[in-house]
Amino acid sequence: MRMNRQGMLIVLSGPSGSGKDTVLGELASLVDDLELSVSLTTRKRRPWEIDGTHYTFVGRAFFEEKLCNEEILEYTCYNGNYYGTPKNAVDDWLARGKTVILKIEVEGAARIRSLYPDCVSVFLLPPSLEALSQRLFARESEDEAEIARRMEIAKGELAHAKDYDYLILNDVLDYAVSDFRAIIRAERQKTCRREYMISEVLYHAEC
Amino acid sequence: MRMNRQGMLIVLSGPSGSGKDTVLGELASLVDDLELSVSLTTRKRRPWEIDGTHYTFVGRAFFEEKLCNEEILEYTCYNGNYYGTPKNAVDDWLARGKTVILKIEVEGAARIRSLYPDCVSVFLLPPSLEALSQRLFARESEDEAEIARRMEIAKGELAHAKDYDYLILNDVLDYAVSDFRAIIRAERQKTCRREYMISEVLYHAEC
Repeated sequence: MRMNRQGMLIVLSGPSGSGKDTVLGELASLVDDLELSVSLTTRKRRPWEIDGTHYTFVGRAFFEEKLCNEEILEYTCYNGNYYGTPKNAVDDWLARGKTVILKIEVEGAARIRSLYPDCVSVFLLPPSLEALSQRLFARESEDEAEIARRMEIAKGELAHAKDYDYLILNDVLDYAVSDFRAIIRAERQKTCRREYMISEVLYHAEC
Repeated sequence: MRMNRQGMLIVLSGPSGSGKDTVLGELASLVDDLELSVSLTTRKRRPWEIDGTHYTFVGRAFFEEKLCNEEILEYTCYNGNYYGTPKNAVDDWLARGKTVILKIEVEGAARIRSLYPDCVSVFLLPPSLEALSQRLFARESEDEAEIARRMEIAKGELAHAKDYDYLILNDVLDYAVSDFRAIIRAERQKTCRREYMISEVLYHAEC
């Protein structure tokens, strides 16, 4: 009776440096039936990133071909690079009852919400802009001008945070991960996802 | 920054024997800032019930006086007895940012939803009607005719379960309690309850 009869799509956004990858990395080993959609991107890989885990790093020509063939669910051009969600895997996972997490920018999230009105959207908040800036400096992968640019983008993204279903504050990592786990567990109890249980309770009595 | 700026009202319903008191008893020691509203009732106390904990047991004249004085938030007449929610405590707790749980019947829950549109409603499902009947027999406080009557009422209540935000299956107690905890934790991250955090993130950077 515990089976999830239908999948659940979760959209995760947050400024660069808010800790999306770290939170998702922890979550993956803690939640059953979870699939993390890996986005395609044409941007350069950062030193700590693993191809096929953080992103699938592809060339511009490859990405544009996928786009022409409608194999990209949503895409955005951010900071001069393409980021896109491959369509096939997401729909297959949902049909198999999985919980699928898409890590996407705010524009992509808006598009996914219109395509999948039942999706759950989560925005990861840094404790402050100062903390965000410090995290970007600690990465040592971007120069000062690039960080200043990312900070401006972050402010723009924060203005869209109010459009999300949930806000998770990523101050203490363990706490943020527990918050995210609770959201997934709670959303699985939503009546719209398990209304079938009511008739099962009534039916089982008559067996 | 973790402070809950406004309280949260949770309505819990479920058939007699679904385990509402047991689940709430466990929850009370596990969740911060939780207040359980104790209903007034004119029905007879069952042997295991504690006055002021499970219900506040009062006489019919006392209840009707409270009703006249508009000190009852909602009430229902169920199985020949009054059940009502005292108004003052609920509003005080909410103003102080507490999470307040009301254990009420389906008619009362509908009334609370119209009075407090932001409330979170949870329905506790027994694993089956058969299991429910066995739990009522195990109580040894009601005779067979009374149990048969409660089972008919239970079927009517289950027909309203679809109107609730969440369905928790109370098959394994620990699992049901963890589900409820997750719902409370998740609801506290809802954007509508913590939108103030967005401006705090932006503001803190400028200190």
